[in-house]
Amino acid sequence: MDRVAIAGVGLIGGSFALALRKAGFAGEIIGISSASTIQAAVARGAISRGTTLEEAAESADVIYLAQPIDQILRTLELLGPMAHSECLITDAGSTKSVIDEKARECLRSATFVGGHPMAGKEQRGVENADADLFRNRAYVLTPPSRPGANAEQFRGWLKRIGAQIVDMTPQLHDKTVALTSHLPQLLSTTLAATLAHSGEDSVARIFGPGLIDMTRLALSVPDLWTSILESNRPFVLDGLRLFQKELCQAVSALESGDITPLFVNAANFSRKIREK
Amino acid sequence: MDRVAIAGVGLIGGSFALALRKAGFAGEIIGISSASTIQAAVARGAISRGTTLEEAAESADVIYLAQPIDQILRTLELLGPMAHSECLITDAGSTKSVIDEKARECLRSATFVGGHPMAGKEQRGVENADADLFRNRAYVLTPPSRPGANAEQFRGWLKRIGAQIVDMTPQLHDKTVALTSHLPQLLSTTLAATLAHSGEDSVARIFGPGLIDMTRLALSVPDLWTSILESNRPFVLDGLRLFQKELCQAVSALESGDITPLFVNAANFSRKIREK
Repeated sequence: MDRVAIAGVGLIGGSFALALRKAGFAGEIIGISSASTIQAAVARGAISRGTTLEEAAESADVIYLAQPIDQILRTLELLGPMAHSECLITDAGSTKSVIDEKARECLRSATFVGGHPMAGKEQRGVENADADLFRNRAYVLTPPSRPGANAEQFRGWLKRIGAQIVDMTPQLHDKTVALTSHLPQLLSTTLAATLAHSGEDSVARIFGPGLIDMTRLALSVPDLWTSILESNRPFVLDGLRLFQKELCQAVSALESGDITPLFVNAANFSRKIREK
Repeated sequence: MDRVAIAGVGLIGGSFALALRKAGFAGEIIGISSASTIQAAVARGAISRGTTLEEAAESADVIYLAQPIDQILRTLELLGPMAHSECLITDAGSTKSVIDEKARECLRSATFVGGHPMAGKEQRGVENADADLFRNRAYVLTPPSRPGANAEQFRGWLKRIGAQIVDMTPQLHDKTVALTSHLPQLLSTTLAATLAHSGEDSVARIFGPGLIDMTRLALSVPDLWTSILESNRPFVLDGLRLFQKELCQAVSALESGDITPLFVNAANFSRKIREK
């Protein structure tokens, strides 16, 4: 693994490049992005130069796709006939099934391993890239389309940058993040919209730190989320239905029953995910 | 305002005492709590000694009730026939209508002003008290039952400890916090319970920082929340119904429409409450 090409040198692509450097990667890191992003990424020290998808397909050992999901799908189509047989193609898209299917359909000889680093920030762009973004965070990898030396080396570098690798099928990944990422996003967004539509001016004045926590995800811009939610629609709808059912039970408990068991179950789960 | 008695010297009562001291209050601060709490509060420097409700009713200029709601109601009943006519009684309970009604019913001659500092922490107890807990936070005050010198002085001290006073009727307060505090709490708790009940082990392993934000409130213990939610049930149920309606619209948009307007409205509101 001597040359890594990063397609989409934003927050995630830039952070992966900085993390590789910090972990001692001595090879070349090049980028495929708009001219202005390439300039910013070189200035940030994330990549040494810009390149084309053609050059990457011919000469890179690893091509890391850190683009929005719809662009990852397009890049896989373009790489299909071009990527050399020793090349590892991997991605950092937020859902895995649609991308995995596209890779199986398009890629002739290159190896594909889907990936999803469970890390992020509200701020986007290579300016906000952080060499420690993946440290102590789960990093899902889906099974490789075929074994290969570059896939093994890539796993080694993920460990060195501090990521906690979790192997998982694309389907289980998507079902899981529908509950742990897409559902929380939609609840935060729907909560903020409910307050915005309530007609009470006082809701923007009388609140505590809890509302700030609960509306942080709602700051997200819609463009990224539209393609994430579309690519995982059935599992997201299942997750919403589970939540709606649980909320109906909470309403009943509030009307006439005992809300204590709900609070106890919720507190136990919330403590558990903080224990790792 | 020379002697302040604090009933319930926990996180809020203790923080109010520390804040008064930091702002230069030179009078006496005494506490009404269990023996072990009084010991901890004296050790923390929040109060100089413990006292009885009887002594406070006879001699304190201000009695600050920082107890759970059900205990505040009981303390008001006890204070009713005892509190001297110059005494200001105020509270820090999370809902205001029920407490305001009880104060009007029970207090003979003392002045009552309801209060609600929009501040908090997950950690409870005087050990976690913080002199800056109220700084730059909204502090709701409900109209006084009658004018009085101690009520005016109390307002002055709230300003000196950095609180941002907002005058509001008990009803508008309760309607507002149903949306900005009780609804977020119930959504966080219901989200954590949904994941706990999903039957997927992977939900406790594959998540990002967003789920941590969205389940922080769910760590809350039920005992406090049972009395808060009971004392504000009609407005809480209204808030839940507004949210359920908005969530149904989000599901429809996800199934067949455009989710962009929801995200844009939500992001605008979330930015607005961060601008103050």
